[in-house]
Amino acid sequence: MPAETARRYASQHARDFEESLFELLRIPSISTLAEHAADCEHAAQWLASKLRESGIENVAVITGPGRPLVYGDWLHAEGQPTVLVYGHYDVQPVDPIDGWESPPFDPVVRDGYVYARGAVDDKGLVMTLVHAAAACLSANGSLPVNIRFLIEGEEESGGEHIKQFLRAGDERLQADFAHVSDSAFFNRDTPSIETGLRGILYTEVKVTANSHDLHSGQYGGAAPNPLNSLAHLIARLRDAEGIISIPGFYDDVVTPDPGIVEGWSRLGVTPDSLSEEIGARRIIGEPAFTPLERMWSRPTLDVHGIPGGFTDLGAKTVIPASAAAKISMRLVPNQRAERIFELFERAVRELAPSDVTVEVEQIHGDDPVLVPGDTAPVRAASEAVHEVWGKAPVLTRSGGSIPVVGLIQERLGLDTVLLGYGLPGDNLHAPNERFLLDQFHKGIQANIEFWHRLT
Amino acid sequence: MPAETARRYASQHARDFEESLFELLRIPSISTLAEHAADCEHAAQWLASKLRESGIENVAVITGPGRPLVYGDWLHAEGQPTVLVYGHYDVQPVDPIDGWESPPFDPVVRDGYVYARGAVDDKGLVMTLVHAAAACLSANGSLPVNIRFLIEGEEESGGEHIKQFLRAGDERLQADFAHVSDSAFFNRDTPSIETGLRGILYTEVKVTANSHDLHSGQYGGAAPNPLNSLAHLIARLRDAEGIISIPGFYDDVVTPDPGIVEGWSRLGVTPDSLSEEIGARRIIGEPAFTPLERMWSRPTLDVHGIPGGFTDLGAKTVIPASAAAKISMRLVPNQRAERIFELFERAVRELAPSDVTVEVEQIHGDDPVLVPGDTAPVRAASEAVHEVWGKAPVLTRSGGSIPVVGLIQERLGLDTVLLGYGLPGDNLHAPNERFLLDQFHKGIQANIEFWHRLT
Repeated sequence: MPAETARRYASQHARDFEESLFELLRIPSISTLAEHAADCEHAAQWLASKLRESGIENVAVITGPGRPLVYGDWLHAEGQPTVLVYGHYDVQPVDPIDGWESPPFDPVVRDGYVYARGAVDDKGLVMTLVHAAAACLSANGSLPVNIRFLIEGEEESGGEHIKQFLRAGDERLQADFAHVSDSAFFNRDTPSIETGLRGILYTEVKVTANSHDLHSGQYGGAAPNPLNSLAHLIARLRDAEGIISIPGFYDDVVTPDPGIVEGWSRLGVTPDSLSEEIGARRIIGEPAFTPLERMWSRPTLDVHGIPGGFTDLGAKTVIPASAAAKISMRLVPNQRAERIFELFERAVRELAPSDVTVEVEQIHGDDPVLVPGDTAPVRAASEAVHEVWGKAPVLTRSGGSIPVVGLIQERLGLDTVLLGYGLPGDNLHAPNERFLLDQFHKGIQANIEFWHRLT
Repeated sequence: MPAETARRYASQHARDFEESLFELLRIPSISTLAEHAADCEHAAQWLASKLRESGIENVAVITGPGRPLVYGDWLHAEGQPTVLVYGHYDVQPVDPIDGWESPPFDPVVRDGYVYARGAVDDKGLVMTLVHAAAACLSANGSLPVNIRFLIEGEEESGGEHIKQFLRAGDERLQADFAHVSDSAFFNRDTPSIETGLRGILYTEVKVTANSHDLHSGQYGGAAPNPLNSLAHLIARLRDAEGIISIPGFYDDVVTPDPGIVEGWSRLGVTPDSLSEEIGARRIIGEPAFTPLERMWSRPTLDVHGIPGGFTDLGAKTVIPASAAAKISMRLVPNQRAERIFELFERAVRELAPSDVTVEVEQIHGDDPVLVPGDTAPVRAASEAVHEVWGKAPVLTRSGGSIPVVGLIQERLGLDTVLLGYGLPGDNLHAPNERFLLDQFHKGIQANIEFWHRLT
């Protein structure tokens, strides 16, 4: 059985596969910071070499705007389906750096987890795909299906390059469905496949009060302060409970079918269990919705940072000329990023205190997406997960966004299988990001199994 | 005439005096940043040498907690008053660094101004005192009065060291009055002597929402966000117009005599002139008070920076575990920093959204102070200014704080003359700080004249 031999090969090479992942984790490929552009290029080249070594053909590092894409394929499974597999090699910034117990780009194994920035998001998952292909090709000399790898380097920073690539159309994108691996199981005991993703609108709102920085002693009491004004604006955009005050914001929000919500309620997430999970005094959100609904099928508005003024240790008595807020909104079906940006910009201009001038910039925007849960590829993926973990996966959604999925649906007309092997508590986007090595190895097994079950 | 000979000496050595100031300006003695501690030490040693060269005696660099004090005296004017002259060699941080047209610690002369951090606050003014003494001692071999120099290095960061020194009492502090030179003329056409300073309470409020940073996709909608919560708190502490909502905050505020306010109203500051001066759309503040009252005799609450989350260029979708706000209040007679801190802390705890835990830290606090305007030293200073600028100075107040003045009054029982030679537009605490060299040289002349008129 080819699946068996490939899976055995993967088991026998588990240590090599870990070493290979650690190599990739050592490259600080932070896409959002310009000073790491060369590291992103390095990670792309590293992946291209690794694909070639694995027996993948037509490998190319595709340059363009922003960070490069990595492409490679193996198309000799005549009569079999073609899978477009997607992941990303770029990672989030590492701040706050003093929250890390070990350096973010020096992978360390503790208690069965590898700790590093990108361990699970998404380098670990990318490597479950690369190693699965390598195992098949090494053990059997072939893959059971045709595979096209498309690995991007801007998932954490808007993904302009892959969007242009998908919009332009390219024969290398011809496939029967996509397998996007950038997600997590519901929890360690509950394998899952995702069927929906929230969209995102990421903005920066800059308010300017004065033509130059002022001394708060000299001018305080009469000079407008952009930080105080920004606080008023932010407070007016979203109340303290999380309800968003932008006129029209909720108009296009669709409530999922009662059966779906009912299924979610069986997953056992309560306000108390969630507060404990995140270490909060209490959770917030719309009282009419359960915690999972708030995270999966309701939109949000969160502030990520407020650049401006003096933020070092100590005291500086400045009234800054201007300040900004990085504000993102998670979007749900059928909200559209473009429309929400219009509503947001209008609301910001209306709600901003009149002592400041306002600039609203869209950093990136992606629509929410739902993928059907009843397709042959999803069934094959479910069987593979059942086989490897001994438990059938549940169908969930994700509160996060994977920008490419909407475009795959819209531009390529393909369904997507959202199958990834992270776990809650993996500290995505936070210090001490990690990936359970058991999930890494089982993920390789599951990918092998999945592809064989597609034939 | 000894005043004449000293003033002539100062005119003849104008170039040397500028060079000497520029040397001091090249030392980046930022007291609030720990990495500049050695630079502060360097500036103190440089000043000590300069005092010794000038003929000042008993020069000492006094170490203790924080940055060193520099002391020196000349006490041979028998039967004449003793003046305690005060200034500070430390400077504010330089950020935002890209706002500077020339490097902050590389003094450059443009259009008659020297541009550098500390040019006017307070190194330029310190050097008007040092050079005035040097001119007297070089030209006449003596000073007309007894002088004690006390120059500190923590004025911009709370001044703990000089506070301890003043509280401890020291025979080197025995004097008849103090001359504090850390202030500005009302404007270039309106010389002034200040008779009041606001106090300050500088705090940092930290709010913690979660035990670790979270991914806004994964948890947004249910997880509390400390930046959103902080915005609500800040908005609740001060309304958009500048009126402060802390219960009891205004209780001890004393309105100045109508005659004083009437005098201020003749200085021609209107909402429009002030908006134009600071480059704002409009000024804010309590409608019942004139702009000068808002800046001189009314208290404030300003946010100086909001550390936390992601503030670099680009996008990061983090819900931070915690965030903080640097908030200061300028205080006016008869508010007391200690009492206002109690009220502030209580209000913060009451007004903070219930999804966060709050820590309130006092960074430093100084009481407001009024100094009498009808003393013999103030009259002598007025005559000196009249002599040098050809115009009698008006009596104003300052919205800023000079922590030491309250302590000089309280601990040493001395009146203070608040005489400095800065000008509006000197960009204190901001990029492109500057000092008009004409004011620098006239300041040296005025100090010489002032001391001679005290005999």
